[in-house]
Amino acid sequence: MAVRVDLNISLDGFATTTDQTPEKPFGEDWMRLTAAYGATRTFRDRVLHIKDGSGTTGVDDKYASAYFDEVGAEIMGAGMFGLHNNPDDPNWRGWWGEEPPFRIPVHVLTHKPRPSISFANGTVFHFLNASPAEALETARATAGGKDIRVGGGASTVREFLKAGLVDRLHVGIAPILLGRGINLWDDLRGFDTGYKVTAETAESGTVHLTFSR
Amino acid sequence: MAVRVDLNISLDGFATTTDQTPEKPFGEDWMRLTAAYGATRTFRDRVLHIKDGSGTTGVDDKYASAYFDEVGAEIMGAGMFGLHNNPDDPNWRGWWGEEPPFRIPVHVLTHKPRPSISFANGTVFHFLNASPAEALETARATAGGKDIRVGGGASTVREFLKAGLVDRLHVGIAPILLGRGINLWDDLRGFDTGYKVTAETAESGTVHLTFSR
Repeated sequence: MAVRVDLNISLDGFATTTDQTPEKPFGEDWMRLTAAYGATRTFRDRVLHIKDGSGTTGVDDKYASAYFDEVGAEIMGAGMFGLHNNPDDPNWRGWWGEEPPFRIPVHVLTHKPRPSISFANGTVFHFLNASPAEALETARATAGGKDIRVGGGASTVREFLKAGLVDRLHVGIAPILLGRGINLWDDLRGFDTGYKVTAETAESGTVHLTFSR
Repeated sequence: MAVRVDLNISLDGFATTTDQTPEKPFGEDWMRLTAAYGATRTFRDRVLHIKDGSGTTGVDDKYASAYFDEVGAEIMGAGMFGLHNNPDDPNWRGWWGEEPPFRIPVHVLTHKPRPSISFANGTVFHFLNASPAEALETARATAGGKDIRVGGGASTVREFLKAGLVDRLHVGIAPILLGRGINLWDDLRGFDTGYKVTAETAESGTVHLTFSR
């Protein structure tokens, strides 16, 4: 029942991008940050529902596939679910359409909890106003003995990292410099102490680093 | 006659450390930041003058060895030469004793130039008050047709990077989080545009990234 984090970040540590516009809700920076992950067969299958077997099958895909393994519950911040962009829409059901890729209970941290939302594929969004430690306790009760992922965004992840609650941190580092956004590494001096680290380079140039304890 | 940079940085981008004390002039952070490089056979031979063939011979050593290849002149900031720590000592000859590892002309940028200093092994320190572009021009005239390295410190390197003067940037990224110091990546948004990047992981966990054009 390890607590896991998996994030895509830039070489200079940024996990978010800032060049979004109403016309380009993801922005070019976001496309570059997630390009290697988005090109994997696993992402195309699992998130985009493209079932033609297309996509990369190398190191990036190995990590993309592991992303979904053995995770029994997820925790995310209100921003990642989209509440900050849609604060007044009581019918907002997240970004992912009617087949969210999670297929497990997802606990959304928010100061304004709302009723849970269920999907046919097993995804259930719960909403709770809780500290990181409290949220983990709640999530653990729904994870069926499997791992728990803290999914994002970067600020939420950093709270869990700083509180010492994360057992495994995997970052896919894109070799690009964004220069602005939310920096995952801010104020994490010494986080690596007590973890062992492995590094692996993908064909795309993405460097996969994993801290585990 | 490419312009090269080779630096050791932490995962969060810091190329300098801040825990030095008079008793520990390098500090524990510095030892961790440079541990993989310091353990190589090349470093032990070339910098420490330990000629017993000891030291690592894997990926880290490959880069350590390449560090000295085909470089005909070096440029460094006043701080790297030690002028900031020894401003009033006209006899200061650098940190490296009587066998500095360079064996080539080294151009030290300073607002207070002083006479050149020569060593028996071919190292000559010159001092000049110049812009990055001017310093390159001076260095090029002494490089015998070989490459020029901008050696450090991080602030000096960043000036050359921002001015678009560097053809090849190699960073050895130690998987540690320092959280403070001079960050190589500050204000370099978009630097990667126009470069191709390669990544390679060493046995030590150090990730070697090279931007080249």
